[in-house]
Amino acid sequence: MSITARLDAVTAAVIARAQGGADGQAPAKLARALHYAVTPGGARIRPTILLSVAMACDEEWPALSDAAAVALELIHCASLVHDDLPCFDDADTRRGKPTVHKAFSEPLAVLTGDSLIVLAFDVLAEAAGSTPLRALNLIRVLSRRTGMPDGICAGQGWESEAQVNLSAYHRAKTGALFIAATQMGAIAAGHEAEPWEELGARIGEAFQVADDLRDALYDAATLGKPAGQDMIHSRPNAVAELGVQGAIRRLKDILGGAIASIPKCKGEAMLAEMVRRYAEQLTPVAPAFSQANARR
Amino acid sequence: MSITARLDAVTAAVIARAQGGADGQAPAKLARALHYAVTPGGARIRPTILLSVAMACDEEWPALSDAAAVALELIHCASLVHDDLPCFDDADTRRGKPTVHKAFSEPLAVLTGDSLIVLAFDVLAEAAGSTPLRALNLIRVLSRRTGMPDGICAGQGWESEAQVNLSAYHRAKTGALFIAATQMGAIAAGHEAEPWEELGARIGEAFQVADDLRDALYDAATLGKPAGQDMIHSRPNAVAELGVQGAIRRLKDILGGAIASIPKCKGEAMLAEMVRRYAEQLTPVAPAFSQANARR
Repeated sequence: MSITARLDAVTAAVIARAQGGADGQAPAKLARALHYAVTPGGARIRPTILLSVAMACDEEWPALSDAAAVALELIHCASLVHDDLPCFDDADTRRGKPTVHKAFSEPLAVLTGDSLIVLAFDVLAEAAGSTPLRALNLIRVLSRRTGMPDGICAGQGWESEAQVNLSAYHRAKTGALFIAATQMGAIAAGHEAEPWEELGARIGEAFQVADDLRDALYDAATLGKPAGQDMIHSRPNAVAELGVQGAIRRLKDILGGAIASIPKCKGEAMLAEMVRRYAEQLTPVAPAFSQANARR
Repeated sequence: MSITARLDAVTAAVIARAQGGADGQAPAKLARALHYAVTPGGARIRPTILLSVAMACDEEWPALSDAAAVALELIHCASLVHDDLPCFDDADTRRGKPTVHKAFSEPLAVLTGDSLIVLAFDVLAEAAGSTPLRALNLIRVLSRRTGMPDGICAGQGWESEAQVNLSAYHRAKTGALFIAATQMGAIAAGHEAEPWEELGARIGEAFQVADDLRDALYDAATLGKPAGQDMIHSRPNAVAELGVQGAIRRLKDILGGAIASIPKCKGEAMLAEMVRRYAEQLTPVAPAFSQANARR
């Protein structure tokens, strides 16, 4: 089964369980909002990396890797729902459709995010089966990379500070869930987590730089969400710092480092190939960028 | 060590860990907001019930019961922070001081709630030690009673529905964390969870009725939060349904049932005594109530 098919099947089952069936025992709008927030999935990069690492490490409990991948994606979706709220980005669209608070309401968006966070940990605990220690390690890594002081909550929290520790900000805001992806993939397959931190951190850095490039160069229709948000919110940005060509060079350096950092494992070559594919996908080629390039 | 002292010590350690020290590696305002949201604690009824059940069941791993108690209180505090947000109750005060979004900001209140939810699961995973299966069971019960379709998120979600399933609403909104309290106390001490559901459910019902009485009868200064919120938000309320004396009779019936439901265990008599103490504390006696009574 392909990675996408695995993720689709498990996500559907997990959301259906959280929706509690059609017997009126759960609030219907919140139940619909849970489904709305996670489908259709975006690129699902983090769970795809997680499952790729698990396969590269020769996973023997695919159900545990699947649970880990879905849990990670649920946390990512929850963060998008909360980040889109009026008090943060005040975004009207996400993945080309209205954001959860626009489609439902602000209270339901808060509750959707909360419910998805809880569901992520529930999924991991439920999947423990005969590997309780691995499940607990997965929960530990996911909670550490989601909450305070090192996770994506901390990353968002930095945006309320006058003095920002830039490296801590980027590590928490974007890096955290990529580190969770590589480490959780390894843990699900029975490997040590620590050697996998660097790969996750470097892929996260690459996505941050690529996101900065897209935010600066693309329009809202291409992005499926509002453009130019970094400038509007005065957020630190690699394009402002290095220029477009400088940011692209930086992106390539980071991805080279990512490949070099892959720990020894059965699927090492496959993972290097995955990173090379991301390198191609991440390098901007849209019209807006070509024009910007032509003008230079 | 008293229950309050146990809770204070463990809560302080857990929050300090989430704050990440003073080296500038965590956003300072969010770190302060985490502490602000959980201290000084309120009555801490849920973790007190949890530890009482654990002791009544002859706990042999107090560190695990402590972690369970703190995790439960973190979830409760998170729910208060999010419930107070402008899009829900829009409350200015809580426990006699400004709510988190008033004292910090709305973004920081959303992130404080999110971080506390994550921290709750982190605490349980970290406390697993040599009892991984109990820790996983604690995580399962806590997630089920927090998220969808049966937890406090579902309870809040019902308030966005035009047609409310009243019994599902009350069970989720108030009952869920009391059921978590009795069941997690039992699990931490190595007992089955199922026989403890009824005690938690009945204590939760009693608190709901008592809360309805307080909301209808007390002023904001006595409550430490805005009064008359049920009427303002047209929420279902036992006083509106049964009248004041009827609601008080109902409260006593429920607490009698709670005592009768206590499973056989070493500390059965102590638990019955605890419920009797709650019965006394819960029955309203403030001036506003005496006046209301005198007028009848």
